[in-house]
Amino acid sequence: MIRVAIIGASGYTGLESIEILLRHPEARVTYLTALPEECGHVADMFGSLRGRLEMQVEPLDMGKLADSADVALCCLPHKVSMGFVPRLLDTGLKVIDFSADYRLKDVVVYEKYYQPHTDRENLAHAVFGLPELFREDIRSARLVANPGCYPTGALLAIAPLLKNGLIETKGIIVNSVTGVTGGGKNPSVLFHYPNMNENLLAYGIGSHRHMPEMEQIASVVAGTPVEMLFQPHVGPFDRGILSTVYCDPKRSLTKEELHEMYRTFYQSEQFVRVLNGPPALKHVARSNYCHVFPAIAKGKIICFSAIDNLIKGASGQAIQNMNIIFDLEETLGLK
Amino acid sequence: MIRVAIIGASGYTGLESIEILLRHPEARVTYLTALPEECGHVADMFGSLRGRLEMQVEPLDMGKLADSADVALCCLPHKVSMGFVPRLLDTGLKVIDFSADYRLKDVVVYEKYYQPHTDRENLAHAVFGLPELFREDIRSARLVANPGCYPTGALLAIAPLLKNGLIETKGIIVNSVTGVTGGGKNPSVLFHYPNMNENLLAYGIGSHRHMPEMEQIASVVAGTPVEMLFQPHVGPFDRGILSTVYCDPKRSLTKEELHEMYRTFYQSEQFVRVLNGPPALKHVARSNYCHVFPAIAKGKIICFSAIDNLIKGASGQAIQNMNIIFDLEETLGLK
Amino acid sequence: MIRVAIIGASGYTGLESIEILLRHPEARVTYLTALPEECGHVADMFGSLRGRLEMQVEPLDMGKLADSADVALCCLPHKVSMGFVPRLLDTGLKVIDFSADYRLKDVVVYEKYYQPHTDRENLAHAVFGLPELFREDIRSARLVANPGCYPTGALLAIAPLLKNGLIETKGIIVNSVTGVTGGGKNPSVLFHYPNMNENLLAYGIGSHRHMPEMEQIASVVAGTPVEMLFQPHVGPFDRGILSTVYCDPKRSLTKEELHEMYRTFYQSEQFVRVLNGPPALKHVARSNYCHVFPAIAKGKIICFSAIDNLIKGASGQAIQNMNIIFDLEETLGLK
Amino acid sequence: MIRVAIIGASGYTGLESIEILLRHPEARVTYLTALPEECGHVADMFGSLRGRLEMQVEPLDMGKLADSADVALCCLPHKVSMGFVPRLLDTGLKVIDFSADYRLKDVVVYEKYYQPHTDRENLAHAVFGLPELFREDIRSARLVANPGCYPTGALLAIAPLLKNGLIETKGIIVNSVTGVTGGGKNPSVLFHYPNMNENLLAYGIGSHRHMPEMEQIASVVAGTPVEMLFQPHVGPFDRGILSTVYCDPKRSLTKEELHEMYRTFYQSEQFVRVLNGPPALKHVARSNYCHVFPAIAKGKIICFSAIDNLIKGASGQAIQNMNIIFDLEETLGLK
Repeated sequence: MIRVAIIGASGYTGLESIEILLRHPEARVTYLTALPEECGHVADMFGSLRGRLEMQVEPLDMGKLADSADVALCCLPHKVSMGFVPRLLDTGLKVIDFSADYRLKDVVVYEKYYQPHTDRENLAHAVFGLPELFREDIRSARLVANPGCYPTGALLAIAPLLKNGLIETKGIIVNSVTGVTGGGKNPSVLFHYPNMNENLLAYGIGSHRHMPEMEQIASVVAGTPVEMLFQPHVGPFDRGILSTVYCDPKRSLTKEELHEMYRTFYQSEQFVRVLNGPPALKHVARSNYCHVFPAIAKGKIICFSAIDNLIKGASGQAIQNMNIIFDLEETLGLK
Repeated sequence: MIRVAIIGASGYTGLESIEILLRHPEARVTYLTALPEECGHVADMFGSLRGRLEMQVEPLDMGKLADSADVALCCLPHKVSMGFVPRLLDTGLKVIDFSADYRLKDVVVYEKYYQPHTDRENLAHAVFGLPELFREDIRSARLVANPGCYPTGALLAIAPLLKNGLIETKGIIVNSVTGVTGGGKNPSVLFHYPNMNENLLAYGIGSHRHMPEMEQIASVVAGTPVEMLFQPHVGPFDRGILSTVYCDPKRSLTKEELHEMYRTFYQSEQFVRVLNGPPALKHVARSNYCHVFPAIAKGKIICFSAIDNLIKGASGQAIQNMNIIFDLEETLGLK
Repeated sequence: MIRVAIIGASGYTGLESIEILLRHPEARVTYLTALPEECGHVADMFGSLRGRLEMQVEPLDMGKLADSADVALCCLPHKVSMGFVPRLLDTGLKVIDFSADYRLKDVVVYEKYYQPHTDRENLAHAVFGLPELFREDIRSARLVANPGCYPTGALLAIAPLLKNGLIETKGIIVNSVTGVTGGGKNPSVLFHYPNMNENLLAYGIGSHRHMPEMEQIASVVAGTPVEMLFQPHVGPFDRGILSTVYCDPKRSLTKEELHEMYRTFYQSEQFVRVLNGPPALKHVARSNYCHVFPAIAKGKIICFSAIDNLIKGASGQAIQNMNIIFDLEETLGLK
Repeated sequence: MIRVAIIGASGYTGLESIEILLRHPEARVTYLTALPEECGHVADMFGSLRGRLEMQVEPLDMGKLADSADVALCCLPHKVSMGFVPRLLDTGLKVIDFSADYRLKDVVVYEKYYQPHTDRENLAHAVFGLPELFREDIRSARLVANPGCYPTGALLAIAPLLKNGLIETKGIIVNSVTGVTGGGKNPSVLFHYPNMNENLLAYGIGSHRHMPEMEQIASVVAGTPVEMLFQPHVGPFDRGILSTVYCDPKRSLTKEELHEMYRTFYQSEQFVRVLNGPPALKHVARSNYCHVFPAIAKGKIICFSAIDNLIKGASGQAIQNMNIIFDLEETLGLK
């Protein structure tokens, strides 16, 4: 039985991780931490856990952590996380980090979008935790950088094309719409119910932090630098990201070729399904699945992908990574 | 042309009042005030007014107010309002106050639910602004206490029964569900989109401030003390209040008698419609209408009413009162 | 491993039953049936099952059913179900029936609300499947009548009061609001998205079929005839029923007594939680839990309950019943 | 006072047209028609009109139409409309047609996306009713083809760029999300509330009928053939279209130049507002405004536009056209 600690359990990804672990036959939550002012019974934090999990959320104690867990899911925010991860690793635990702090290999890029990086040593050996692309590296990782929600959806949408060198690596456009949980659990003016209900809008124009993350991994997959324009939007629903990716084929492809190529690429994957039509967000809500559909229209390739931003885009993918690291069946807790 | 000032224009009722006045052929907004830190162009406060109203929101200046307006819609919060209303009245303007400060005639009751009352003098002559019940008093009022949203819906639902002495005046139950704008425009944990979306819950059990307001007015209408149990809920939609009122008939009534009585009671009213079936909230959204439907079931009378909480429950009713005070056609701006 | 057949798998309760069984460690779906025109791969029927369950939905074949299953969840509609249940029982399977056909013991009442009953024999020995009240009877049942969604919520809200004889058995008012899945999966004008979104309305005034069901079971619990007025509403959300039940105490009770009594009554129950404040629908969504909260206000007792209409109100409760019948841990697949 | 007939008043655009005309000081609805089986009191068709408009909806009678109206808003569906428009014109009325039947000047394109065209004569002289681009032609038109909702939003987003020859005319991508009213008022499986709530998906890949309409008008504006890839999506809200348009600048532009150019282009327009940040759908809901925002990101120009699909995308634009034709102030009824 794998013992799992959740560091920074008070947010949406903490709750989702707990929910998944409650269904996991070979892992269980053994330690939950949060800021002192947020601590207390876990059901006082998350009403939906009432009667389902009898645990206290406690301030982080490294000694207690070391004694009680085999792996830490680190759900701390960007910039905060790298202040804790070195110490988590020092306890000997495996660490799966949800923040962006260990995703960008190029420190210059990281520091442009975030702040000075204080843990370059661990950054160097962190593995980008997208199992469909880096499963073998994850298997032996001590520190996994769990991917961003948008990059997960966008990369799974176009990885087959990049890998097979079938599209131009410039001019790729990623148009995404996320649900409001993507903005976290802190109240704000925009996400006040009467402001966001029946609303839809773009944000982060040309500047979203997930853009360099997408480009870095896309470049690794393609074996050549890839340039992507990523435009996020937020819409009036709780969960999910629908990405519509536009790209230019290098050569003419038939619809049949395209589908066949996607099916071949993902044939061994448990959590990616290549559909025959455009994916619906509701069909992936609360699951670890990514539904993809590649299409051809007016000389462009349009690739659609749908994921749950909190599951395949965060906690589900983290547990998938954990299963890989501990050599468990990859789908445990997730199907 | 009636010149209208809106004192405390930064909230939802301020915006709704502006929207109505933009359609009003014989009134116009001439002065908008808010706290200094909220001031600026009105379209920066409310994006939906962009291009439609070129006005600054300014800190309140009594001299400027006196010069620029004939009537003040005072949209300040409970407890704050009574600190301003005396001065507003001193300028010679008519005042329509949206707060609870002038609704409860019994100061003891007011002070139990709110705080010490500091303006008993004006309280004494304030008129409760529910035109369907107190139109003649409103006509000559200098200060109108605009009714609460819940009392408006509940009272219109059962006024015919109370007036005709047909129901027991104890044991009346008012079960209401409001949309989230009823909670105002300040962000909060409960009204954070992902918390309120797909949610529904009760609040204010046995303690909501609109309960004594309902009872006071119901007692006036019935000519005898009325006891009501009011239970509010909040649901996942922007606007509207659906009230389901349960009461005990004093004598047996047929469905036909009941309907006939309601139709007679409201036959001259422009904004109350007696339906043949249960009202749907969406049919009254963004209108000043109240849809009511009385029914009989298992020996009880069930009265349903639907209003828009921001229109008939606030700004629309205020403009209706303004029209009455200034001897305009009562429906101007509202149909 | 319990083998489960779902008869009439094409509706929302079919999908929910499948979802639960996919997480159940000691049961699995072995046979899915639907009308011939609806048959095919289960993922073509429910897109969210894509990749998660490889099964065909087939027309019902009694021989195949008998060979492949230990228990049948019969998800057929009211009136249709009693045409199939006798034959399902003849195969030797246990049957858990989701329809109303075996819930009302009094055939006269059934025939008033539904139609002539054609299977009085099995009706006589069917057990009402509300485990919190009838667990021992369920244990040995061959045919379980799975309760209606509204009665489940309403009865759990007031069972402690009825059992302890603390409330008047006349004049009980059940005011409920359901999500739209309660209306089934067939498109209709009212449930067309733009009609139901941002809407809320009452229906079934004095005539809802769940009213006699509530009264029957409440009377059994109280040991004396109980009269209830049930008023359902439908609101703009997918799932859940919030019930607000008003009743008159026979004697004065303190808030502490009331809570203590509820906690004692439900202390051994895994799926009922007595809260310290009003339940929020979102906290029970997608779970088999019922959250209850009893309160006192103005001389009345108000009991609130929240359930997921498709889980504790249908499929979850059916699996709970199945677990009891097969002597499994009652919470398997449901926690 | 302009007398307005609405032909085919039973759909969403009929209702919106009525709503606008109820606020119009110089026009009024004089005749409403629908299919015989839909006829009756207008408030039985649209509950929100209860008490606000006392009119019957009648089967179309050409004689009565000629006697009672100056202009016909023809809200019939595509393909049906061209069977009626010639007869409407024969009565001497001005006609504003909401269908696609008179929008596509190239009959070959029309027939590819729709069906054989049966009224080429009137097609030849119909004017495309986008006032911001074709105001002068509209002024003297007898037949106005009211634009599609998507083309209205997309064209207003990029017209300044096309007119000034600043972007490549190939490779333009229009990514749009509409609310569910865009799909009309007939219930369907996809738009059944529990299917569409919390959902988002693409449709019409490479084949939407509004694509050739956009291209035709964009080509007129640019003075050269324009190729656009249009990808629509539908999301969980009632109203509005948010379009995100990606295009390639022919030369380098600063953000300031871009904004200045947009402000100049639209400086005389009453219903287009150039914002300083991305538009929010909720700010244009229920208004005739189009909010646009042009931005530069990674070498691309991204233009955002937000409209209400039923107002600026249909009924509001029709009334705007009507105002122009009858030489009224263009904003009457619409501000």
